[in-house]
Amino acid sequence: MAFHLLQRDREGAGRLAGALSEALGAIRHCAQCNNFSETELCDLCATGERDPRLLCVIETPADLLMMELTRAYQGLYFVLMGRLSPLEGIGPNEIGMQRLLERAGDGITEEVILATNFTAEGEATAHAVGELLRQRGLKVTRIARGVPVGGELEYVDSGTLAQALLERRPTSL
Amino acid sequence: MAFHLLQRDREGAGRLAGALSEALGAIRHCAQCNNFSETELCDLCATGERDPRLLCVIETPADLLMMELTRAYQGLYFVLMGRLSPLEGIGPNEIGMQRLLERAGDGITEEVILATNFTAEGEATAHAVGELLRQRGLKVTRIARGVPVGGELEYVDSGTLAQALLERRPTSL
Repeated sequence: MAFHLLQRDREGAGRLAGALSEALGAIRHCAQCNNFSETELCDLCATGERDPRLLCVIETPADLLMMELTRAYQGLYFVLMGRLSPLEGIGPNEIGMQRLLERAGDGITEEVILATNFTAEGEATAHAVGELLRQRGLKVTRIARGVPVGGELEYVDSGTLAQALLERRPTSL
Repeated sequence: MAFHLLQRDREGAGRLAGALSEALGAIRHCAQCNNFSETELCDLCATGERDPRLLCVIETPADLLMMELTRAYQGLYFVLMGRLSPLEGIGPNEIGMQRLLERAGDGITEEVILATNFTAEGEATAHAVGELLRQRGLKVTRIARGVPVGGELEYVDSGTLAQALLERRPTSL
């Protein structure tokens, strides 16, 4: 891309550079949910139409978009902007653990929903975050693990199937 | 395959025909779990080493193999050999509903685990079967629906994510 811009589109390169440095100056983190925002509070935190008793902890802004696409969640978010990953030198400070604890301890939050990925690092992050939040007397839940909607047993990996079996639940009437 | 056998491998065709009619004569349904078996009771039902209080309801013999691969289940099975599908003319009689009710009502079975697929037909089957079993006072559970093990939120369909959110569960200590 760099070669193309320098050789064939020097004007476009200038526009791109301008847009990038403008974004760098304008975009910061929302004071409440830690997501990218141009204002002190992001639009989602500022509306006042979301349920402030629910706080959903996710890894990235892309995950927040996915959650919003489901239209199944009406609470607020906290974006970690990463996950615990000792091998990459990402510890509790890098994912804003302290800020999350302060955010969740605001006295309004009743339930923290851990929605980090079901990868090894996401699970470790959920475990560590959940542990600290529970010590503060908060209700902590984790999104369900199991067979995807529309999924057939024959094509599901055996780890998922074993987990779905262990986490089976009573059928509702 | 038929053209190949007739033109190039008439001897193989004879062997295949023999094997097939032998199988047709020898293989029937296990009297207990309804799976294919060469004996009155299949090996799995006959061992006596499985937990008779658990009964897992699945659609096909292939699903039974998948469940066994997980090594997470120690109970017995009932194979429906299909699913409810009104459009294909498959009703309660075709999936051995009556046999399942008799099997589950043996007085030893305590919990019936519904492990039909999470497709529309599989869900409808689980609902119908579960309803009838609950009326007979049995504990009925369904394997978990949610994000697969190793799954990342960003790449999961929104139906599954919504379901995982609705079926979130308290984290254990």
